[in-house]
Amino acid sequence: MNDLKPFSKDLDLDALFIGDKAENGQLYKDLLNELVDEHLGWRENYLPQDKAMITPEQQSSDNFGATVNHMKDVLNELSQRIRTESVPWHSAGRYWGHMNSETLMPAILAYNYAMLWNGNNVAYESSPATSQMEEEVGHEFATLMGYQQGWGHIVADGSLANLEGLWYARNIKSLPLAMKEVTPELVAGKSDWELLNLPTETIMDLLEKAGDKLDAIKNKSARSGEHLHELGKWLVPQTKHYSWLKAADIIGIGLDQVVPVPVDDHYRMNVAALKQIITKLAAEKTPILGVVGVAGSTEEGAVDNIDQIVKLREELMEKGLYFYLHVDAAYGGYARAIFLDENNHFIPFDQLQQKHQEYGVFTEKKSFIKKEVYDAYKAFDEAESITIDPHKMGYVPYAAGGIAIKDIRMRDTISYFATYVFEKGADIPALLGAYILEGSKAGATAAAVWAAHHVLPLNVSGYGKLIGASMEGARRYYDFLGQLEFKVGQHTIQVHPLTDPDFNMVDYVITEKGNTNLDEINQLNHDLYDQASYVKGSLYGKEYIVSHTDFSQADYGDSPLHFVQSLGISEAEWQRVQKVTIIRASVMTPYMNRAENFAYFAPKIKAAIQQDLAAIFEK
Amino acid sequence: MNDLKPFSKDLDLDALFIGDKAENGQLYKDLLNELVDEHLGWRENYLPQDKAMITPEQQSSDNFGATVNHMKDVLNELSQRIRTESVPWHSAGRYWGHMNSETLMPAILAYNYAMLWNGNNVAYESSPATSQMEEEVGHEFATLMGYQQGWGHIVADGSLANLEGLWYARNIKSLPLAMKEVTPELVAGKSDWELLNLPTETIMDLLEKAGDKLDAIKNKSARSGEHLHELGKWLVPQTKHYSWLKAADIIGIGLDQVVPVPVDDHYRMNVAALKQIITKLAAEKTPILGVVGVAGSTEEGAVDNIDQIVKLREELMEKGLYFYLHVDAAYGGYARAIFLDENNHFIPFDQLQQKHQEYGVFTEKKSFIKKEVYDAYKAFDEAESITIDPHKMGYVPYAAGGIAIKDIRMRDTISYFATYVFEKGADIPALLGAYILEGSKAGATAAAVWAAHHVLPLNVSGYGKLIGASMEGARRYYDFLGQLEFKVGQHTIQVHPLTDPDFNMVDYVITEKGNTNLDEINQLNHDLYDQASYVKGSLYGKEYIVSHTDFSQADYGDSPLHFVQSLGISEAEWQRVQKVTIIRASVMTPYMNRAENFAYFAPKIKAAIQQDLAAIFEK
Repeated sequence: MNDLKPFSKDLDLDALFIGDKAENGQLYKDLLNELVDEHLGWRENYLPQDKAMITPEQQSSDNFGATVNHMKDVLNELSQRIRTESVPWHSAGRYWGHMNSETLMPAILAYNYAMLWNGNNVAYESSPATSQMEEEVGHEFATLMGYQQGWGHIVADGSLANLEGLWYARNIKSLPLAMKEVTPELVAGKSDWELLNLPTETIMDLLEKAGDKLDAIKNKSARSGEHLHELGKWLVPQTKHYSWLKAADIIGIGLDQVVPVPVDDHYRMNVAALKQIITKLAAEKTPILGVVGVAGSTEEGAVDNIDQIVKLREELMEKGLYFYLHVDAAYGGYARAIFLDENNHFIPFDQLQQKHQEYGVFTEKKSFIKKEVYDAYKAFDEAESITIDPHKMGYVPYAAGGIAIKDIRMRDTISYFATYVFEKGADIPALLGAYILEGSKAGATAAAVWAAHHVLPLNVSGYGKLIGASMEGARRYYDFLGQLEFKVGQHTIQVHPLTDPDFNMVDYVITEKGNTNLDEINQLNHDLYDQASYVKGSLYGKEYIVSHTDFSQADYGDSPLHFVQSLGISEAEWQRVQKVTIIRASVMTPYMNRAENFAYFAPKIKAAIQQDLAAIFEK
Repeated sequence: MNDLKPFSKDLDLDALFIGDKAENGQLYKDLLNELVDEHLGWRENYLPQDKAMITPEQQSSDNFGATVNHMKDVLNELSQRIRTESVPWHSAGRYWGHMNSETLMPAILAYNYAMLWNGNNVAYESSPATSQMEEEVGHEFATLMGYQQGWGHIVADGSLANLEGLWYARNIKSLPLAMKEVTPELVAGKSDWELLNLPTETIMDLLEKAGDKLDAIKNKSARSGEHLHELGKWLVPQTKHYSWLKAADIIGIGLDQVVPVPVDDHYRMNVAALKQIITKLAAEKTPILGVVGVAGSTEEGAVDNIDQIVKLREELMEKGLYFYLHVDAAYGGYARAIFLDENNHFIPFDQLQQKHQEYGVFTEKKSFIKKEVYDAYKAFDEAESITIDPHKMGYVPYAAGGIAIKDIRMRDTISYFATYVFEKGADIPALLGAYILEGSKAGATAAAVWAAHHVLPLNVSGYGKLIGASMEGARRYYDFLGQLEFKVGQHTIQVHPLTDPDFNMVDYVITEKGNTNLDEINQLNHDLYDQASYVKGSLYGKEYIVSHTDFSQADYGDSPLHFVQSLGISEAEWQRVQKVTIIRASVMTPYMNRAENFAYFAPKIKAAIQQDLAAIFEK
């Protein structure tokens, strides 16, 4: 499972995509046809003594022909509609919008191939091959996160992986209370407060000691419907990705238990504020169910200081407090590969730049990695669970989310079968359906992720290089935006990038020189979005495409104030309008890391923005 | 959206599959390559003035070539592993196991094609074309169920669709209690008991009257974490598919609120028992959160008498009781198409056979439809929500689940944005992410389901015919099994099919003549499963493949007793062993409806079983 060998220091990422202009289209087709032939041959050669049920005579019949034509009509309509209203994110340098980009050719091919077998990885008997691949992928997720005794699996998406993380937290937190009822000897002498502050590892150790009382304990845990209100608060960054509200609703602890933690003006969780909140809650004897740290926020790409959260937890443990830590790295999870050497060891910070040069992670000889971000990723292995989505920075097609857990024993707290003793090296892996939210899942997704991981190892020799390309492209875009200024008639339009990106998300705001009316500025940015998105005109003809978001006071508090003031806007104006509209790019293009590529597109982007602005001011 | 025209009375289903022996393999490849070319052309022609980033020189370089070779190595390993350990369910007559079969060529092609754009249907801006298709598919689900004001969408799988149904039920049931707090005038004069027994339609009407208090009411509903224990019991068939236990755990009402309702000896919910349970709970003033009826149980294909459940609800409403009704038709949902005419109207029972003959739904001129099953399907439109999985009887590849809701207004009870006014005919459909569990979902899945629905309309002219083929194949297998007997040395082995199938699931048990020891009989059936599955030997060489299950007293009560006694086993023996091992087939093959096809395979199956039995008794 951990046999991903460093492939080569000269890996050419461009060979792994179909290409912005379908440069590798023929290669894609060749490989695809080869795989399809292998499938067709497999069908033909299964018990060759059996005759075919569909005869050439039937295939030549009118009904058969008419049915084929009907199918072609439907496929033509499908094709026409998709080509008319889809987003040209494959473009190397025109698309700077939502999380979308080229996906890895091996992943697409593997999906197309495995799909022909239509395995369902929940039921091992229906899909032995792809079930084994998912088991391997799960261990690869765990290794990527630095988990020694971990496990993982593919989830339909990141919101569900987050829900699963919360499910773990809720059920685990309630177990000591269940033990008090069922096996009081296991937790003798502990107060309820102490029981609600036991570290996860301790709870897992106790559970191991429960023997045949395991099921009885589980039956009295939160899964019974009891204890939900005793478990305390679920702390999430103030920017509250809506998946966390949904998750708290669905899991039954409820929105009232969700406590937002302020973010700083880098849009990272303010750990000092976190400490204050926890201290206050603890003083009121309200337990902390858990804390969510985010690595790669969806709007800013901000990476919370996971290391500081871990350090805070250590401090608080000395005071008898404990919280479950879930890292929502749905977006940024794969980026941990950039910090792992060929042997999957976390690279010392002072060797990072050299190692990156060795593998050509960046084209420029400078450091793109902030020490804070490095420290945050290093501490991932202290979190109980981590969401990681292959369909985001894994460059695997939708839908492929994922989760990794620190301690494989945790699975028993949410499982629906008798305890499964996981045997390393056993031929038959875990019955996946017992340990996950879903009841069916495509074997093809596992094949796609498996192929991606085996072409690009989850370290500096593989994914690290791809993540590096995206980060360097983001840096170029950020630097480029900072130099822009436009004249439209008598209007001067200035461009203001948001904070220096932690990762590969680049946000900015445009303003008209001299205008400090925030409503009007927001409108201007919204107008730019309309011009540079599906909203106005044909998508296929767009020469520049962006996405947008709002930072509202309701979600962000006054964190954007610092930035807003840098636009020349007063605090009073911010307090009046209470939101700022942002142009946002998740920079995933694998091509814009190279100076010459970026230089080719830079004037084109500039001209396109000029044109969009002209359209706005003409109206 | 409802423009699915009846295609032709002469539709040839065999033109829509790759074929058991890849007979249509070339057609598949031709269509696939055409679509891929259309995608590649689209990439090339987006802003043709932009130069390609990957040059022929680069493509000729050593690094590029080495990277391609590396990718090929990985794909070769993938292919080899998948071909070694996959299940040959594509076989026309050898595979009689788990829910797996050929899937529809148009669905596979549409998926492969749309996947190249990698749309995420949660975010309209990233996938306008496929988001529109999903909106259409959702309305098609609703129309299939007979919902006039309904809606629906694709879900990652059926377990999650069930969870979503329970989420709806939980939040809706709690709304009147929330209204009492926030807008008491809306529910003036009503006791808590009355509030907990308001019909869903009444609650939706009240919610409409709430105006700008909507969000405040929602904030006091079950999503807040309150009221979970007041909502009452969730009644599911005794056979408790584990998805319902998981769902109750996850949604926070808890396993303690799940009440099993006995099934009868046809494995359908015993509605008399349901009435007793509800009456008893009501006498104790315990509300009924909801009832789950199943259409196509996973082990027996049993269809609960939904009409009787609906009738019971009507009776109880006169006594001031109400429960939410969810139909779990994950498996059997598409079968409703067999009851709809070309205009999607439910066909009167006395015209059904004639209509089926007109469209060639069955090859034999006899009725395959039980009146009870017909009545059950007819009543679907009274349920609040229905799970329907395209990846089961929709013949669409995994993962594609689905849900339909009766009243589109229900969406507001689980949504996470301000009320969205759904405008019919508006260009931009609902922002899907606001109304569902997931936070990302593949646009390709929507394209696949859309293509399947548009090739095969969801009525007697399309899916009805495919469902018919599967039901008729199941009937042939059932009749065939009933006639079998084997001699192995001095042993005589008899075959006992379970009850006459409601749908297309065929179960049976083999016994050795004269042996009435249930443990030994179970072992014999388990041995047959081992021989006829991945457990022993190479899957690719298997000449007969089955799946198996256990009917245990814990899950089934004494429902299997009648069948067990028909095997010559005493009640005392059943009470001692408490389970019977069953050989189970979900008969999805679209080829075995024809007499000549079945006749070709029947002796081969018989010989294969003979061989398996010989292997068992030899050991």
